[in-house]
Amino acid sequence: MANRGEIAVQIIRALREMNIQSVAVYSTADRDSLFVKLADEAVCIGGPQPTESYLNMAQIVNTANLMGCDAIHPGYGFLSENAAFAQLCADCQIKFIGPDPEVIELMGDKARARETMQDADVPVVPGSHGILTTLNEVQQVVDSIGYPVLLKATAGGGGKGIRRVDRDDQLESAFNQAQQEAQMAVGDDGIYVEKVIDHAKHIEMQVIADDAGHIVYLPERDCSLQRNHQKVIEESPSSLITPENRQILGQIVVRACQKLNYTNTGTFEFLMDPQQQFYFMEMNTRLQVEHTVTEEVTGLELIKAQILVAQGQDLPFTQRDAQVKGYAVECRLNAEDPAQDFRPAAGKIKQLDLPTGTLGVRIDTGVTSNSMVPPFYDSMIAKVIVHHQDRRQALAKMRRVIGELSVNGLTTNQQFLLELLEDPVVNDDSFTTAYVERDFLNQQAGE
Amino acid sequence: MANRGEIAVQIIRALREMNIQSVAVYSTADRDSLFVKLADEAVCIGGPQPTESYLNMAQIVNTANLMGCDAIHPGYGFLSENAAFAQLCADCQIKFIGPDPEVIELMGDKARARETMQDADVPVVPGSHGILTTLNEVQQVVDSIGYPVLLKATAGGGGKGIRRVDRDDQLESAFNQAQQEAQMAVGDDGIYVEKVIDHAKHIEMQVIADDAGHIVYLPERDCSLQRNHQKVIEESPSSLITPENRQILGQIVVRACQKLNYTNTGTFEFLMDPQQQFYFMEMNTRLQVEHTVTEEVTGLELIKAQILVAQGQDLPFTQRDAQVKGYAVECRLNAEDPAQDFRPAAGKIKQLDLPTGTLGVRIDTGVTSNSMVPPFYDSMIAKVIVHHQDRRQALAKMRRVIGELSVNGLTTNQQFLLELLEDPVVNDDSFTTAYVERDFLNQQAGE
Repeated sequence: MANRGEIAVQIIRALREMNIQSVAVYSTADRDSLFVKLADEAVCIGGPQPTESYLNMAQIVNTANLMGCDAIHPGYGFLSENAAFAQLCADCQIKFIGPDPEVIELMGDKARARETMQDADVPVVPGSHGILTTLNEVQQVVDSIGYPVLLKATAGGGGKGIRRVDRDDQLESAFNQAQQEAQMAVGDDGIYVEKVIDHAKHIEMQVIADDAGHIVYLPERDCSLQRNHQKVIEESPSSLITPENRQILGQIVVRACQKLNYTNTGTFEFLMDPQQQFYFMEMNTRLQVEHTVTEEVTGLELIKAQILVAQGQDLPFTQRDAQVKGYAVECRLNAEDPAQDFRPAAGKIKQLDLPTGTLGVRIDTGVTSNSMVPPFYDSMIAKVIVHHQDRRQALAKMRRVIGELSVNGLTTNQQFLLELLEDPVVNDDSFTTAYVERDFLNQQAGE
Repeated sequence: MANRGEIAVQIIRALREMNIQSVAVYSTADRDSLFVKLADEAVCIGGPQPTESYLNMAQIVNTANLMGCDAIHPGYGFLSENAAFAQLCADCQIKFIGPDPEVIELMGDKARARETMQDADVPVVPGSHGILTTLNEVQQVVDSIGYPVLLKATAGGGGKGIRRVDRDDQLESAFNQAQQEAQMAVGDDGIYVEKVIDHAKHIEMQVIADDAGHIVYLPERDCSLQRNHQKVIEESPSSLITPENRQILGQIVVRACQKLNYTNTGTFEFLMDPQQQFYFMEMNTRLQVEHTVTEEVTGLELIKAQILVAQGQDLPFTQRDAQVKGYAVECRLNAEDPAQDFRPAAGKIKQLDLPTGTLGVRIDTGVTSNSMVPPFYDSMIAKVIVHHQDRRQALAKMRRVIGELSVNGLTTNQQFLLELLEDPVVNDDSFTTAYVERDFLNQQAGE
C-alpha cells in the first residue's frame, strides 16, 4: 500500500481475506499507526512531509521491489492519480492497481478530459476548449458562456486551485490567485474555465472494468453536501434519480470507459441541474473515499474487485449484481474546528469510542484511542456509514451513531455533522452543492 | 430494559433511533457498564447477584413505575421467559415486550409445549408425554423409545439440567443429577425424556407476530456448533435447506403461532436428521442472542419490530420482505478458558480492540477497554457477525476479523473460534450438533 490511515487498513483487510500478504510503507509520523500494526510487513520510508514519504515515488517502488511485492495499491490522494508513478511501477514490473498511466494522465488534464468526454458523447459543462494561460483568453471564454464561472487548475482536484467568479471586476484577481495556487499545488499554471451550473447537485457514478472488457457501472452517489469543495456527507442512491435515469447515465459512462479502454475503478463526476440534465465535470481515476456507500448499497466489495482485476482476473460480479439495495449514507468525521473556519485540529486522540455493532452501521477508521492525527495529512478520523432500507430511517440511525460516538483530546466536526443531519433540507433531500456554505453555515452564523 | 450488557445496548440504540426514551436498571456490579452510560436514565436496583437485581421482579416493576415507563424489554435470559414477570407487568399496566404470560408459561413447560405442538401438527421428537418425577416413570418411557435419550428439566433451557443417557446402567445417576440441577436452576424437579436424534443439526426458525394477526417467519438458523449445549457459532441460512423446505418449515411454525395466538417474537428449535426430517425440541418465547444473523441476512431490524408490535402497531414488514440475502455467521467471543474446560474467566478487560468497519462486519458488544466482565452473569464479551453473499468468503472474513481482534487482560475463546473457523468440517458445513464436543475437541486434545 502506497498510502496510510483508514484506506491502508481497508486494503490490508481485503488482502488478508484473499490470503495475500500486505506490505505497508509509512512515514516517521505514522510509526504507531493502526495500519502499520496490521500489515504483514511494514517499512519506514521517510520523514513526515508527504514529499519525504507517501509522495516519494522512487523510495516506494524500491521498497516494493526489495520486499518482493507484485503490486501496489495507491489508495486515494497521494500518488493515486499520478501518471508518472503508474508508469514507474510499470517500468519496474510492479502492477499499479489502477488504470494505465496514459488514461490517468489524460483524465488528470481537466481540459483534455473534457474534450475526450465530448468526443464520447458525454455531456459536459460549457467552458474553455483547452488550457488557458492568459487573462485575455479567459476573458474571451467568459464573454461567450456568461457568468458565473469557475476557474480551475487543469491538473489536481480536491478543491485546490478552484475560484468562482460572478462579475467582471473579480476576474483578474481571481485569475491571478487561481494560477498561483495551481502553480504551487501541481507545478502547472494552466487554467480551465467552466460555467457554474447553479442549483445543481453533485452526482457521481463509479465504474469498474477488467482486462477482458467487462465494465460494470455502480449506483450513483449524491455528494452535494460539500464545504470548500470537500465532501462532508455522501449518499447512494440519489432519491431524485429514477432507475431509468440511472441506467441512461450508466450507459453513458460505460461507453466512455470503452472509448478510454479503461480498466480498474474510476468515478465520473457530474453536475445535475434542476431539470436533471447531467454535465460531466471530471473523472477520478482511482478509488474514492466514499466508495463505502456504494459497497453498502450493492453488497459488493470494491477493493477486492480492484485487486482481482489487477491480477488479470475477470470482475467477480456483473451488471446484474450491481443493484440498489436500500440506501446508504456516509459522514466524514474530521479533526477540525468548525468555529475556526474548520481549521484542521491535529493532535492526540486520548480516547476514541466508536459505537460498533447494530444492523447497518459501519465505521471505517485508521485510528484508535491514543492515536495521533498528524498535521501533515488529511484530518479525517473516521468514515461513519449507515445502511437502511429507508432514507429517513438511515438518517435517524446516523444521528444516533454520530451522537453516540465520542472523541476525546481534539476538536472534531461531530456537532456540525449532527446539526446537518437534523436539518430539514438535508432530510428532505432538497439541497444542492451550494447549500452547506451559502445557506446552512450562514444560517448558523446568524443564530 | 430489564437486562444488561450488549442486549441492553442494542435496545437503547433501537429506542433512540425511534425517539423513545430508555431507562436502564442495573446492579452494583454494572455501575460503570456501557449500557448504563448510554441509557437516557439508569437506576441501580440492587446487588450483583441476579436475584438481587436482574431477577428481582418487584424492584424492576417498581422502578419502571416510578420512572414512568410504558413498557419493559426483557432481552434474553433473566426474566425474559418468566411468565410471572410478564403477568406482574400486565397487572401493573406496563407492557411486557414479548408474548402473553399464558403462552410463555405454556411453552416454558417443555412437556406441555411438546403436546401443544403435536396438536398443531408440528413434528416432535419421540419422548415422554407429560412431566415425570420418578425413576420408574422415566424407565418406562426409555423402554418404549430406546436409547440414547436426553433427560431434560421441563422448565429452563440454555443447557441447564440436560443429561444424555446411552445405557441402562447410567440412567439412575443421570436422573438424580438432572432432577437436582432442575431443582436448583428453576425450583422444579419435573423431568422430561426425549429420544436423541443422532447426526442431527440444530435448525431453528424465528417468527414475529403482531396483534392484528400478521405473522412472519424468518430464514432458518443453523446453530449446530455447540459446546455443553451452549451455542458457539450460528449461521443463517442453512446451506442444506432449499427454498422449498424453508417455506414448508415456515408454514408449519406460522400455523403453530396461529394456534397459540402468538404475538411478538419467538423461536422454534428443531433437530433436523440426515433425511431432513424436522423434530420440534422447544420454543424460546423471546429474542435470542443469535437474532443478529437473521437481521443481517434479511436486513430487518428485529428489536425495532418487537417494540412496534408491543405498541400495538402492525409489523413493519411482510413475509415478502423476509428474503434470504446472502449468508451471515456469528461467533460468540467469551471470557472463558478453553484449556480449563471453558471455565468462565471474569475480570477486567484492560484493552479491547475490535476491528470496526469494512463491508459486512458487525460487532455487538456491551464492553469497552477498562470494562469489567463480572463473575455473576454470562461471560460473553462480544458477538462478531459477518455477512457476505458467499458462505466460504464469509468464513474467510470471519477468520480475518477474529484473528485481528484483541482482548487484553483476560482469557478468551478467540483461538478456539479461529481453529473452528479453519476446520474443514466447518467450512464444508458437514457438522452436526455433536461435532464440537465429540470430534473437534477430542481431535484437538489428541494432537
